[in-house]
Amino acid sequence: MKLQNDLIIKACKRLPTERTPIWIMRQAGRYLPEYRAIRRKHDFLTMCKTPELSAEVTIQPVDIVGVDAAIIFSDILVIPEAMGMELKISEGRGPVFSHPVQSEDDVKKLKTPDPEKDLKYVMDAISLTKNELNGRVPVIGFAGAPWTILTYMVEGHGSKYFSKVKKLIYENPELAHELLEKIADATADYLSAQIEAGANLVQVFDTWAGLLSPRDYRVFALRYVQQLISKIKRRGAPVIYFPKGVHYLFHELKECGADAISVDWTIELTKVRRKIGDKVAVQGNLDPTVLYADPSFIKREARKVLESYGKGDGHIFNLGHGILPDIDPENVKELVSYVKEESVKFHSKK
Amino acid sequence: MKLQNDLIIKACKRLPTERTPIWIMRQAGRYLPEYRAIRRKHDFLTMCKTPELSAEVTIQPVDIVGVDAAIIFSDILVIPEAMGMELKISEGRGPVFSHPVQSEDDVKKLKTPDPEKDLKYVMDAISLTKNELNGRVPVIGFAGAPWTILTYMVEGHGSKYFSKVKKLIYENPELAHELLEKIADATADYLSAQIEAGANLVQVFDTWAGLLSPRDYRVFALRYVQQLISKIKRRGAPVIYFPKGVHYLFHELKECGADAISVDWTIELTKVRRKIGDKVAVQGNLDPTVLYADPSFIKREARKVLESYGKGDGHIFNLGHGILPDIDPENVKELVSYVKEESVKFHSKK
Repeated sequence: MKLQNDLIIKACKRLPTERTPIWIMRQAGRYLPEYRAIRRKHDFLTMCKTPELSAEVTIQPVDIVGVDAAIIFSDILVIPEAMGMELKISEGRGPVFSHPVQSEDDVKKLKTPDPEKDLKYVMDAISLTKNELNGRVPVIGFAGAPWTILTYMVEGHGSKYFSKVKKLIYENPELAHELLEKIADATADYLSAQIEAGANLVQVFDTWAGLLSPRDYRVFALRYVQQLISKIKRRGAPVIYFPKGVHYLFHELKECGADAISVDWTIELTKVRRKIGDKVAVQGNLDPTVLYADPSFIKREARKVLESYGKGDGHIFNLGHGILPDIDPENVKELVSYVKEESVKFHSKK
Repeated sequence: MKLQNDLIIKACKRLPTERTPIWIMRQAGRYLPEYRAIRRKHDFLTMCKTPELSAEVTIQPVDIVGVDAAIIFSDILVIPEAMGMELKISEGRGPVFSHPVQSEDDVKKLKTPDPEKDLKYVMDAISLTKNELNGRVPVIGFAGAPWTILTYMVEGHGSKYFSKVKKLIYENPELAHELLEKIADATADYLSAQIEAGANLVQVFDTWAGLLSPRDYRVFALRYVQQLISKIKRRGAPVIYFPKGVHYLFHELKECGADAISVDWTIELTKVRRKIGDKVAVQGNLDPTVLYADPSFIKREARKVLESYGKGDGHIFNLGHGILPDIDPENVKELVSYVKEESVKFHSKK
């Protein structure tokens, strides 16, 4: 099925486009009343695991706010669950693991999931979404980066100090590497299966990358992202890597195998482009809190993001982090239509 | 009273020292059983406001772990309280403001505190500490940076999304500037009074600096830090500025008036020194979670920090952020004595 809108795919490859494509991290989410209406009837994990529900909320932002891609509604923690960890919903805390990984034994017990079986619901959601979208926009598959998944597996949930995972990498780096290796393998299979099921591109989220010093980031995070990407690369789907909070090692990041690097709003796109734009595309980076302001301010700030990247191809417009749950959807619509229109000036006419 | 140990003062001025001085952010705090023994009997604000208690816990880490300075035990929120805001202790959340600043009226109502009266307990704690220390080590005074204080005044407490303060700077920047101006003035008076009372140097904590894009940081944070420092500079006490999470604008940071810039562990000291070390001293930057590991690992990592700064003067050893409450004090002792001994190799013999 031919894509009617392949702007994001082209931007990932730094090919000419008539305007800058835009999608929004967590675009299928709580800020949309249409999402909340469904969420009221089903808990979060049920939504992830029911392809019809997942496909429905995945497509909502395409219809409602007009983004250039649909990212499959799911959670990065389905991988550790498929590896054998028990995932529970804790009120106010989101998904948590009842028995975090603590010992060598715990690591040994983890299995290598078969995505076609253990994560079939994700593949079904992707196929269903693809059918329903019928080529209108590409479908983005995703997974957590090995370091970020390791963090959740060891801490059990989000953490204030991240003491357990830091203790692990400092005191038992061999075990950390063994676990990271397993996660990277499982994630490579998982993303390959998503591409097989129809994902047109994939994003790897490294939410906790910024916890690490540059040295530790290289050893415990970047290395496994490279490994992961090298294994899925031959599938041909572009890969976007989002190392949240990382503002260093760009010369290594541009060689990590990703087609695009997503950056947060504390980094100027001009600088990022200068450092890596000859090699990879750049995604980002409007401060998500800008969407709290009124449309005229939002447009001014969006314009600054376009200007900061500058003229030319290879930019995917996005926020610097996920959209916040209490944003007015009208503001998101304004942003999307403004970027679609204004960004034409930043691309050459063919 | 002459200081017997003025290593930190000298390091701030980038003067030759025989070794690298070390102190630890939040060194007077929960990780020490001796602190917890006192804290069990008094609530946090009572401890801040009782000079005898404040002086006692201020001196504890000098005696117990051997740091090269005593930082006065207090809280950055005493300034907004002195400006007229009601500060309460909320269990599990720390100090919170019952009525955050919301309107122009709220800003108008804020008063300019007289530190000698409204914050006399801080000055008394400083004098008492000075007397009891009797010149053993310098006393560090401190305050929050205007942007960080604004954040707490508007949010009421720490926040997940910081939506209120972001809305304020986006939608009503004039009011934000009016408030920042007031805070900067009050803080200048406050730090001047601390120096007058005997603080040998002061640190300005910009805990929430990293929330801002480089452009917003310049306009809403850095500008008021510069203003603040220019007002206290003539007192002669060195100023350390800690813009947590800031990894940009170093060419402007080195001109902000501070004698030393404190950086977190995500930035390599080699790079910081190359960018600013010809003009200001550098403080930092061991990852606070390294103290969870065993002494041999801690020493290896501390050595890397020393190496990253390199040979020469102008380095104050510290963590990249406050010490975590569940750290073993024995590890802190090991760190301090290791840095004292090992750092001799990084300084020339006189």
